[in-house]
Amino acid sequence: MSEPQVAIRPPHVAVIGESDPHGPDAQRLLDWAEEAGLLLARSGATVVTGGLGGVMQAASRGASLAGGMTIGILPGADAAEANPYVRQAIPTGLGVARNLVVVTAADAVLAIGGRHGTLSEIGLALRQGREVVTLSSWRIDSDQRMGGPRVHRTRDPREAAALTLRLARAGAESP
Amino acid sequence: MSEPQVAIRPPHVAVIGESDPHGPDAQRLLDWAEEAGLLLARSGATVVTGGLGGVMQAASRGASLAGGMTIGILPGADAAEANPYVRQAIPTGLGVARNLVVVTAADAVLAIGGRHGTLSEIGLALRQGREVVTLSSWRIDSDQRMGGPRVHRTRDPREAAALTLRLARAGAESP
Amino acid sequence: MSEPQVAIRPPHVAVIGESDPHGPDAQRLLDWAEEAGLLLARSGATVVTGGLGGVMQAASRGASLAGGMTIGILPGADAAEANPYVRQAIPTGLGVARNLVVVTAADAVLAIGGRHGTLSEIGLALRQGREVVTLSSWRIDSDQRMGGPRVHRTRDPREAAALTLRLARAGAESP
Amino acid sequence: MSEPQVAIRPPHVAVIGESDPHGPDAQRLLDWAEEAGLLLARSGATVVTGGLGGVMQAASRGASLAGGMTIGILPGADAAEANPYVRQAIPTGLGVARNLVVVTAADAVLAIGGRHGTLSEIGLALRQGREVVTLSSWRIDSDQRMGGPRVHRTRDPREAAALTLRLARAGAESP
Repeated sequence: MSEPQVAIRPPHVAVIGESDPHGPDAQRLLDWAEEAGLLLARSGATVVTGGLGGVMQAASRGASLAGGMTIGILPGADAAEANPYVRQAIPTGLGVARNLVVVTAADAVLAIGGRHGTLSEIGLALRQGREVVTLSSWRIDSDQRMGGPRVHRTRDPREAAALTLRLARAGAESP
Repeated sequence: MSEPQVAIRPPHVAVIGESDPHGPDAQRLLDWAEEAGLLLARSGATVVTGGLGGVMQAASRGASLAGGMTIGILPGADAAEANPYVRQAIPTGLGVARNLVVVTAADAVLAIGGRHGTLSEIGLALRQGREVVTLSSWRIDSDQRMGGPRVHRTRDPREAAALTLRLARAGAESP
Repeated sequence: MSEPQVAIRPPHVAVIGESDPHGPDAQRLLDWAEEAGLLLARSGATVVTGGLGGVMQAASRGASLAGGMTIGILPGADAAEANPYVRQAIPTGLGVARNLVVVTAADAVLAIGGRHGTLSEIGLALRQGREVVTLSSWRIDSDQRMGGPRVHRTRDPREAAALTLRLARAGAESP
Repeated sequence: MSEPQVAIRPPHVAVIGESDPHGPDAQRLLDWAEEAGLLLARSGATVVTGGLGGVMQAASRGASLAGGMTIGILPGADAAEANPYVRQAIPTGLGVARNLVVVTAADAVLAIGGRHGTLSEIGLALRQGREVVTLSSWRIDSDQRMGGPRVHRTRDPREAAALTLRLARAGAESP
């Protein structure tokens, strides 16, 4: 039997956002998440999400449309919680603490909209040394001027996907 | 043998910030943390921190000066990591995930300065439904206008301690 | 203002077991847990539990009868979950992962009865380098002969408390 | 654009054991892990491990030889920690708490040898309702007679893989 092929790891991008966006912007956020997921997967990235609905499902669906790999890091203990576009469901049993895993499993993070869970993921991503790209999401600044250059606002999913992918590639090379 | 007395829980306030602040503001942040810790303990609050140095130690020291209870939720597995003003050291072995415990263990959170770890704690606190008071710390806003009223900027430790204590009391009553 | 007194940490003992024991042995397990808690507290130990009912409550109640400190590391996010004999409630929001914190927060662990959650805590305690004393609980052996001397079976709460306390003191000195 | 194909999830089996087995049995454990990984993957299972060396690497290597999917749930924050036979590396940043994720991400668990970390994973697996198969690993019994039928000892990797796969299929159907 021949030697198995050693895996080469594609860049991993976490797309984070609400499981149930509402308000006037909700549909736009979902459309953006699907487009970003599709663009990321088309460029060869693996799309990591929290595995549930809303922005997570839209991003996974977009990536699936492009035939890409999608990973869902679930808060509960049951893989059946995952949305249907998650190819690798990882039930964690961690509840809120799974937010740490979502961003640590990625080389860079794209936040689309989002509420407090998303804010916690942005903070944890920065804490773990990951770059964060935002699209109609949180604006973070510091009275201590220490926010630095690691949160990047973008205006549309094309710009967001391209920038996140570039940062993920750089992050994967020098962790 | 008589019935043991049932415990009444004082409000718990987490004071979060850097373990090693530097730059021109460092000493002011430490002074503020000590004063806030002292004022909180004098008002009967238990002061929860991450148990390490810098702002955590200063807040614990202030609370100790007032004879208050101090809890340190440590990232490592060894109680000896705690600063000397922690009365109850809780080694967790959780690493970064201990940030979730620090804020969940509190009824309200006071952030003094702080870098990315502190930002992650602010996000996790909001995710867990805790109110957050800031003092020369992160400014958080949302392109989705959903930041809401749960992050409160203050200008000095007196105002910060009073507001955090009030919010902790309200939070402890209606979790 | 004078220098605050530096805290001296008493030995911390985790008492672990079921939140709702049933079957013919249930009352005996609860009685044993209360007696062990009382003996531990009388000897100056802090009693750490998972903060809920059953064995956790009985051990906390015993320690309270002796006027001792009791810490409850809760799985949920609400301090009101704690049984009434917990003096320091630490809501973690971690779910099952709080089991790691219960044993890491202790210098030695006493298991009284218990089901699968207790078994996970025994395993995690050993993984974290803590000694484990058992009382009508799990029997653990290895086909690899590596269980070693760190799980100690005892026959009554007096023997159990004395041994756990001795191991906790040794553990606290050389972590 | 056509509708993306909805993913069908293969059974997930966690293979757990030491990262650095030693002693006279070490090579046999590694050989067994590789054979079990190969047999599991051949039958269509995804092999989940903790992603590091030793038994984890051997099981991943075996699965790779059969062209199967391998997932590595890493304790650290860097995907480069993964052994070369992990196709999906999930850095978690959780340290020891990642043990909970390894077993929760699986439908059934196969323990091959192993020390205290493995014992903690067996306990956590049972706590999460997963069946556990052992091969020259821990023997677990209870003074309370509650160990029940969920830990199954086997004698060789062929029996172990077949039984774990059957239990994983049953577990995945009725979580």
